[in-house]
Amino acid sequence: MRDGARVLDQFGVPYVMELLAIHQDPQRMVDFATSAAANQYRVIIAGGGGAAHLPGMIAAFTPLPVIGVPVKSDHSIDGLDAIYSMLQMPKGVPVATMALNNCENAALFALQVLGSSHPSYLELVQAYKHKRKEDTQQISKNLQNMGYRNYLQERLGVDSDEETVRR
Amino acid sequence: MRDGARVLDQFGVPYVMELLAIHQDPQRMVDFATSAAANQYRVIIAGGGGAAHLPGMIAAFTPLPVIGVPVKSDHSIDGLDAIYSMLQMPKGVPVATMALNNCENAALFALQVLGSSHPSYLELVQAYKHKRKEDTQQISKNLQNMGYRNYLQERLGVDSDEETVRR
Amino acid sequence: MRDGARVLDQFGVPYVMELLAIHQDPQRMVDFATSAAANQYRVIIAGGGGAAHLPGMIAAFTPLPVIGVPVKSDHSIDGLDAIYSMLQMPKGVPVATMALNNCENAALFALQVLGSSHPSYLELVQAYKHKRKEDTQQISKNLQNMGYRNYLQERLGVDSDEETVRR
Amino acid sequence: MRDGARVLDQFGVPYVMELLAIHQDPQRMVDFATSAAANQYRVIIAGGGGAAHLPGMIAAFTPLPVIGVPVKSDHSIDGLDAIYSMLQMPKGVPVATMALNNCENAALFALQVLGSSHPSYLELVQAYKHKRKEDTQQISKNLQNMGYRNYLQERLGVDSDEETVRR
Amino acid sequence: MRDGARVLDQFGVPYVMELLAIHQDPQRMVDFATSAAANQYRVIIAGGGGAAHLPGMIAAFTPLPVIGVPVKSDHSIDGLDAIYSMLQMPKGVPVATMALNNCENAALFALQVLGSSHPSYLELVQAYKHKRKEDTQQISKNLQNMGYRNYLQERLGVDSDEETVRR
Amino acid sequence: MRDGARVLDQFGVPYVMELLAIHQDPQRMVDFATSAAANQYRVIIAGGGGAAHLPGMIAAFTPLPVIGVPVKSDHSIDGLDAIYSMLQMPKGVPVATMALNNCENAALFALQVLGSSHPSYLELVQAYKHKRKEDTQQISKNLQNMGYRNYLQERLGVDSDEETVRR
Amino acid sequence: MRDGARVLDQFGVPYVMELLAIHQDPQRMVDFATSAAANQYRVIIAGGGGAAHLPGMIAAFTPLPVIGVPVKSDHSIDGLDAIYSMLQMPKGVPVATMALNNCENAALFALQVLGSSHPSYLELVQAYKHKRKEDTQQISKNLQNMGYRNYLQERLGVDSDEETVRR
Amino acid sequence: MRDGARVLDQFGVPYVMELLAIHQDPQRMVDFATSAAANQYRVIIAGGGGAAHLPGMIAAFTPLPVIGVPVKSDHSIDGLDAIYSMLQMPKGVPVATMALNNCENAALFALQVLGSSHPSYLELVQAYKHKRKEDTQQISKNLQNMGYRNYLQERLGVDSDEETVRR
Repeated sequence: MRDGARVLDQFGVPYVMELLAIHQDPQRMVDFATSAAANQYRVIIAGGGGAAHLPGMIAAFTPLPVIGVPVKSDHSIDGLDAIYSMLQMPKGVPVATMALNNCENAALFALQVLGSSHPSYLELVQAYKHKRKEDTQQISKNLQNMGYRNYLQERLGVDSDEETVRR
Repeated sequence: MRDGARVLDQFGVPYVMELLAIHQDPQRMVDFATSAAANQYRVIIAGGGGAAHLPGMIAAFTPLPVIGVPVKSDHSIDGLDAIYSMLQMPKGVPVATMALNNCENAALFALQVLGSSHPSYLELVQAYKHKRKEDTQQISKNLQNMGYRNYLQERLGVDSDEETVRR
Repeated sequence: MRDGARVLDQFGVPYVMELLAIHQDPQRMVDFATSAAANQYRVIIAGGGGAAHLPGMIAAFTPLPVIGVPVKSDHSIDGLDAIYSMLQMPKGVPVATMALNNCENAALFALQVLGSSHPSYLELVQAYKHKRKEDTQQISKNLQNMGYRNYLQERLGVDSDEETVRR
Repeated sequence: MRDGARVLDQFGVPYVMELLAIHQDPQRMVDFATSAAANQYRVIIAGGGGAAHLPGMIAAFTPLPVIGVPVKSDHSIDGLDAIYSMLQMPKGVPVATMALNNCENAALFALQVLGSSHPSYLELVQAYKHKRKEDTQQISKNLQNMGYRNYLQERLGVDSDEETVRR
Repeated sequence: MRDGARVLDQFGVPYVMELLAIHQDPQRMVDFATSAAANQYRVIIAGGGGAAHLPGMIAAFTPLPVIGVPVKSDHSIDGLDAIYSMLQMPKGVPVATMALNNCENAALFALQVLGSSHPSYLELVQAYKHKRKEDTQQISKNLQNMGYRNYLQERLGVDSDEETVRR
Repeated sequence: MRDGARVLDQFGVPYVMELLAIHQDPQRMVDFATSAAANQYRVIIAGGGGAAHLPGMIAAFTPLPVIGVPVKSDHSIDGLDAIYSMLQMPKGVPVATMALNNCENAALFALQVLGSSHPSYLELVQAYKHKRKEDTQQISKNLQNMGYRNYLQERLGVDSDEETVRR
Repeated sequence: MRDGARVLDQFGVPYVMELLAIHQDPQRMVDFATSAAANQYRVIIAGGGGAAHLPGMIAAFTPLPVIGVPVKSDHSIDGLDAIYSMLQMPKGVPVATMALNNCENAALFALQVLGSSHPSYLELVQAYKHKRKEDTQQISKNLQNMGYRNYLQERLGVDSDEETVRR
Repeated sequence: MRDGARVLDQFGVPYVMELLAIHQDPQRMVDFATSAAANQYRVIIAGGGGAAHLPGMIAAFTPLPVIGVPVKSDHSIDGLDAIYSMLQMPKGVPVATMALNNCENAALFALQVLGSSHPSYLELVQAYKHKRKEDTQQISKNLQNMGYRNYLQERLGVDSDEETVRR
């Protein structure tokens, strides 16, 4: 969640971060979700690992858009448990599922949702994408100028003549 | 669920069957689960397909044992979505997960749970198992007596000389 | 897509439906996605089976929110190919992935996104959810009143005394 | 199993812990399972990795409820081998399967089973759940009071300004 | 099993076919397996679907070689449950696992095992393989002579000009 | 393979189609692969289901490029067995693996390989792609002109008002 | 393979260990397999990772029984590529597939195969199994005598009061 | 990619290595792919992890053969996301997919493609394969001469008497 919060901080988007332990304190999740729209929330990001019922249950209690971030935790089934539990919501109760562990994208997608009413947010997304494009172009240019061997050695400390072991 | 109900009917175990549409009517699930112990329920069986949050959420709201039956529905991911969503419950909130679509076993396991306080139920389970043992012994005997070719033809209408097509 | 269009029709939400054959006519996808924001689109729903690159590539060309619907087609790997290809987008380019074949949810989620600027849309979502709650409560009541045996027989034509074959 | 034993110790529930090497010493498993009900066992927890036949075979020999804990061992297929082998029991012989490696939940579920006859056990489960609810509420409160940045740094030693590396 | 029996019949190999319902009548499996070596069995083929504990448990009770045939049954997890349950046997108790549903190969492999002591069996296997080689060479020759279009139409009734529908 | 042959016929590319039963007649595969380069073959397409060793083994015996087409057959593990067996070739012996059952693409890729020496083949590929682009543009235009409801009804005979059943 | 060789050494079974790089030097595999029966081999164990064609191709060239050991290598798909490639052999050419990385079992199964002609080998297997039974009984006894807390601490250096971290 | 570049360097094949960040800078990918044939590229190798749309999208814009290398990155679904996204391309737009992380094979396959027009490249592939055959024969000889115990100890520093721990 930290990674998502950093994106929101960077864009100056106000947000509230809460710990909702859905299976330990389910009533608190119900109270939160039931009152979220009235409390002026606009979009909700919920993460979870394993059974990962949180985003789907919040979505059941609120008309607001809910974004889910599946997390690959220690005893998970490769993260597939959380992915399937968020993704496979029934007709009428969507959860917008993001990539495994990818909370940055949840924050960005929240901005895109808000951009629907605040065009300035879409401009932020646009600027963010522009910045990333320029970054990759710079890396690309460096790679061209230095050659990949020098690039790997200087930037990553990897010696390109050392063969990767493969069986 | 019908298959589970038939098992309970057969043993004369009183039960209540309800439709709880967790994502369409979540508050009703909350009300049911919160009051289940007070309402003298002893064990709860909950089925579901896809995201299949029902058994886990009921378990979050009640101290009673909850048995989950994952269902392979039309747009499911081979039933794995429901299996993982029930099985992978976090510490403190177990769901006793049964085989895919196997509601009979949920009913039987409920009997085994009740048998902890009502030894007569355990005797019912014992009798049920005994009956099934005798059934398979009878089939086995028939198979021996008739030979497998005759058995397949007479009982299943399958001609054992017709080769199964396999590539 | 038909199922999603029906939801939008039902709510009177204006939309454009286009066939974008991303691998056959990729430039048309580029033109569409590049100009979508300027053309006053607010949110984009894209479906696909197999490699299913459409939603992710549109998202690469536009700051608008993109909703992806993975489709299980005939020669797909159980639909997992499309799910993973939409879900696993890299940092900076989210795709809001829906359940397998669940285009209704894509349409509803689009409404929730639009609801961020048009509160009336959120009210529509609220009303839709309310209607579905009442429907399930009615079914639930019928089930209680008739008993499950009668309910199955009358409504579904299933005879509850006929045992499901299971090995 | 240690984690499950600790739960039972904490609640003062008497139990016996045995090593049953089902494939190395199968007759001992048969003897144990056949006599378990007569020996006043009330519920059985069995774990295993790989082929993981133990819970299912015990269940075949006893009318008592059997709880299975799939374990992800070194040469397992991501733990799926043990999960499927416990979960997919045939009609008539249920195994209540728990989450991967989650022996605490097996112990808790055993308490819930015993609670059917000893209401005091259900009260223990209730108290356990209450304690965990309070714990998460305390963490939640700390998180609110300190802000997530301070919380991460003080409690976990994680500097929230250091970006998670993601490709 | 029928397909395997046909192979054995074809080679004149004496065999006994029994129904061992491992979970319904586990003691019978124990009795069978414990006495199999003394009863002059030489090799054992055991099939099963779902949890599929039969081959592994027999192997636990006998020093004889055990061949397992995983079966994809109606409520199985694509047959993977049976495959993993047979394949992933622990150190000391091997089960020779065959392809899904491939009981012919189990019979052939049994012949290969017996061939270790009865060279005449290995000659049977050799002859069987020779026959199949000639069969495929004949098909291959026909395909060359007729051309694939005519071959498909004459032998399979498939019109090669009709395009396979693919999305 | 028929679908791939049709593509080659359509482009007037000479080819030889053979049945190589790798496991029944392995020496013939060896002879074919060893002499393929000397026999003026330029590129080899090999399909297979299940263990699907054919493309990889041919690639082991020839320096020519080998294209593999995994086939989902009746007793396969969802086609994943053939996919993995072709795809996961070790260092030094690549197989160019195509989509499940997609022999058309194998034929097209063979053309692209040949295009390296015969620019006229690349022009054929270009023309083929152009034709498909125009086809999808025509469908797209029809969809726009008729509206999706009329389009579905007229072209596919599907009544768009009939709701897809979904649970 | 080392683990399998140790088992054979322990039993005094003569064997030959060779490196057959099937994709780098396929003709050597052909020569080996074609002449194996004439060279007095009785049973063949072949391991491999990734595409893992070795056991299946040897089986195609020899009437001898072939045992396959799938290996989970660094760039494998969780070992499933090797498992499926060995397991899913077509009709007529069985490979007796063992558990992932479990070469001990391959050696033991080879002994069981040889036991078909040399009863003394079966006695070795019997003795091996007896030894392992006694070992587990000793561990079990120690566990009972010491209690699990002391056992874990003394034998494994694990402090049972330290809670396993689980999220 | 480094491993692939080393193969090309070793053979003196001229190549260009570029960083194309498809989702961050999609237009650059379009420009590259659209002009690749005119710019005298002959074959394109593209790698990627996660959604991994790069090879498929390049293939959509060019008639040149495209080789895809799926990469298993940190937050990937075991690399299956990239594999499926490259492999499952629709009819008309093939991507020649290589093994997970196996860029050496992509480079070799590129040589095989070029060998279609430049027989000297095929001779390079032939020589490369010959060298690898000799290498494995040398290893094989050493293994025979030294015995596997000495070989493991001298070459790998592994003591063959130390038993691999296995549960």
